[in-house]
Amino acid sequence: MENIKIYKGDIVFTKQTDYFECFKDGYIVVNNNKVYGTYSSLPEEFENLEIIDYSNNLIIPGFVDLHTHAPQFENRGLGLDKELIPWLETYTFIEESKFKDIDYARNVYSSFVEKLKENGTTRAVLFSSIHKEGTKILFDIVHSSGISAFIGKVNMDRNCPDYIKEDTYESLNDTIEIINEYANKYPLVKPIITPRFIPTCSDKMLISLGRIANEHNLKIQSHLSENQGEIDWVSELHPQIKGYANVYNSFGLLKPKNTIMAHCVYSDENEMNILKENGVFVAHCPASNTNLSSGIAPIKDMLNNNLNIGLGSDISAGHEISMTKVMVLAAQLSKIKWIYNNRNSSFLSTSEVFYLATKGGGQFFGKVGSFEKDYEFDALVIDDSNLSKLDLSLEERIQKFIYIGNHTNIKKIYVCGNEIK
Amino acid sequence: MENIKIYKGDIVFTKQTDYFECFKDGYIVVNNNKVYGTYSSLPEEFENLEIIDYSNNLIIPGFVDLHTHAPQFENRGLGLDKELIPWLETYTFIEESKFKDIDYARNVYSSFVEKLKENGTTRAVLFSSIHKEGTKILFDIVHSSGISAFIGKVNMDRNCPDYIKEDTYESLNDTIEIINEYANKYPLVKPIITPRFIPTCSDKMLISLGRIANEHNLKIQSHLSENQGEIDWVSELHPQIKGYANVYNSFGLLKPKNTIMAHCVYSDENEMNILKENGVFVAHCPASNTNLSSGIAPIKDMLNNNLNIGLGSDISAGHEISMTKVMVLAAQLSKIKWIYNNRNSSFLSTSEVFYLATKGGGQFFGKVGSFEKDYEFDALVIDDSNLSKLDLSLEERIQKFIYIGNHTNIKKIYVCGNEIK
Repeated sequence: MENIKIYKGDIVFTKQTDYFECFKDGYIVVNNNKVYGTYSSLPEEFENLEIIDYSNNLIIPGFVDLHTHAPQFENRGLGLDKELIPWLETYTFIEESKFKDIDYARNVYSSFVEKLKENGTTRAVLFSSIHKEGTKILFDIVHSSGISAFIGKVNMDRNCPDYIKEDTYESLNDTIEIINEYANKYPLVKPIITPRFIPTCSDKMLISLGRIANEHNLKIQSHLSENQGEIDWVSELHPQIKGYANVYNSFGLLKPKNTIMAHCVYSDENEMNILKENGVFVAHCPASNTNLSSGIAPIKDMLNNNLNIGLGSDISAGHEISMTKVMVLAAQLSKIKWIYNNRNSSFLSTSEVFYLATKGGGQFFGKVGSFEKDYEFDALVIDDSNLSKLDLSLEERIQKFIYIGNHTNIKKIYVCGNEIK
Repeated sequence: MENIKIYKGDIVFTKQTDYFECFKDGYIVVNNNKVYGTYSSLPEEFENLEIIDYSNNLIIPGFVDLHTHAPQFENRGLGLDKELIPWLETYTFIEESKFKDIDYARNVYSSFVEKLKENGTTRAVLFSSIHKEGTKILFDIVHSSGISAFIGKVNMDRNCPDYIKEDTYESLNDTIEIINEYANKYPLVKPIITPRFIPTCSDKMLISLGRIANEHNLKIQSHLSENQGEIDWVSELHPQIKGYANVYNSFGLLKPKNTIMAHCVYSDENEMNILKENGVFVAHCPASNTNLSSGIAPIKDMLNNNLNIGLGSDISAGHEISMTKVMVLAAQLSKIKWIYNNRNSSFLSTSEVFYLATKGGGQFFGKVGSFEKDYEFDALVIDDSNLSKLDLSLEERIQKFIYIGNHTNIKKIYVCGNEIK
């Protein structure tokens, strides 16, 4: 072992969904940026090595935001009395069109990334806008921050206002230019193929993006079954294909284990099966789904059904960039869905929403989001001393942090072994 | 006019539920702590007077928290995978029993009141614990803070653990002692009669509390129809009376226009009519109602039906003390209820939840929660400059503050004309 680091503190993570792994005054041994082991007491072999001592602080995995829109950052909290399509048309497209201006892009993206990092998001999957130069700036800013991310230049060439509609060829060329420039430029920030959603992408666009993803070995992200109006629209646009997910699939855009579909609010059993068969990651975005009156996604059912699931802040339909706030709302909505389902089955517990925001979404990045052996060491050191005067268990302390903590409790941040704060 | 003060800024409030009153670079003229008028341009008669200039800041009414439990403050974020009765028994009663210790009470109540004030709550209706001395300390601390409140020593003499169960006579005597000492001690902090809820109060207790409220001209608060298990329990305890609200009514505890009932999640048409006839204030507690899997109260229907309604943080079943967070969740849950109701009628808009958190709850205190003529001047001065780089209308700025602002944006606080921060 070459490059050992040992961290001491009150360690909490979720190996499985249904309970917290807790090590009071425990140790995480990191070897070459990966977890070598997590222990209640330090094994003899490490006894003479230096210990980075975070005693009395919580050490937890960094948070994973599986779906969010960087260029919508300035729009947080606006237009939330509307539903998806009018919200897009009244607020979102106009704001995104501003990212043609690279100074505006640099300015807003800097604030966005700063907030993301400040709130302990160590991994994020981002939509940029359609703009090539603005997207490149986002790559550079995210890399500088130390966060790990997949970033997608958005593609859209139909059914949207002219000021934000792309020419198909230009859109594809811009996408390839970004891939060529950024696929190997940064170790932790990579491109991802990003058709906005079916209604705004021509068949030619969708087929070509599927091909590019294959040729360049890239992951894919888009939106699925968020809103009934949207679903009906997709069905009108593709009457020959049954089911929204199958439209993506028919264009080669459900790449096994490498695709994120945000929302999946109205995914029925058929659609869930398609998602499961293809190992699609569902990005559950509870704030967005309530703010835009979309609905409550059947996440507990999906979890029981062993689908891949993570959480998304979905800025700006979601207003909260903090993943702890997203976790809380995921638990709350799950309880409401359970009530309306006559309290059959159960709702998402605190450990389950924590799992979704760490290991659940982390799996999209590889071995990320846990302190099990060989996981990349992404960690937050949490000083929770101001959150309670009570004598609490670690399970209770992590609950308290999730419910009433905030970014000011985050003292240190590690991404893939690197201390970035 | 003797004691005129003039405030200038970007004024926003809700006279009615359905839209924001906005005065860009407007003026509020306050005479003897009450609003004399709100203007777009300053009337001639005031032209030579000094102006307190908050230009570019929002000036909005202070927030009203119509239902919260001060001695549960340390429990925020704990036990929220449970429902009401097990949550009470596992966490809440044990924590409240600690308030026998006046040092503990002083310590926790100081933190609680500081947080309440910090978040812009200028009026609150509080449950204390059963403890007389601890309750007196709460009166003193709230008075010192400058906030206005009704504070109730809790009464409970059955169906609860012995360590928190009161002797009926002692409970009533303690209640009367507090009334005698505090009814006229502080101008803005007053006692309120507070039976915990029907299951934990004997008939003798309930009858006596109704009488005390009448004799001493006091307001009343309690809990109603929060959870189905609780409702069934009440019906078993009082089989001769039909409907939970009627149990309170039969003991003289629905005092016209002077009673708050928290929750009312399961209030049907009959119960709503009783609440309306008696001018009962419904304290809607969205965070509590989701955290404990209680349900979604039919607030939009109640509002359409002209009931008196305010919002409550309901610490600690609710985890957020900030009324803006409570507003957001009220809007979100209302959208979910609307979806499950096949999108009939509509959901609570941003102006409606703002109204509930200001004028709606404020009416329990008199003319409070608005900048109309003769309203007591409770105000928050909000520096929202860090919330957006966009050029926004006042309606949009207040939305942004509600959704993404926090206590750090609150620059000044006024309660009944007094600057308290």
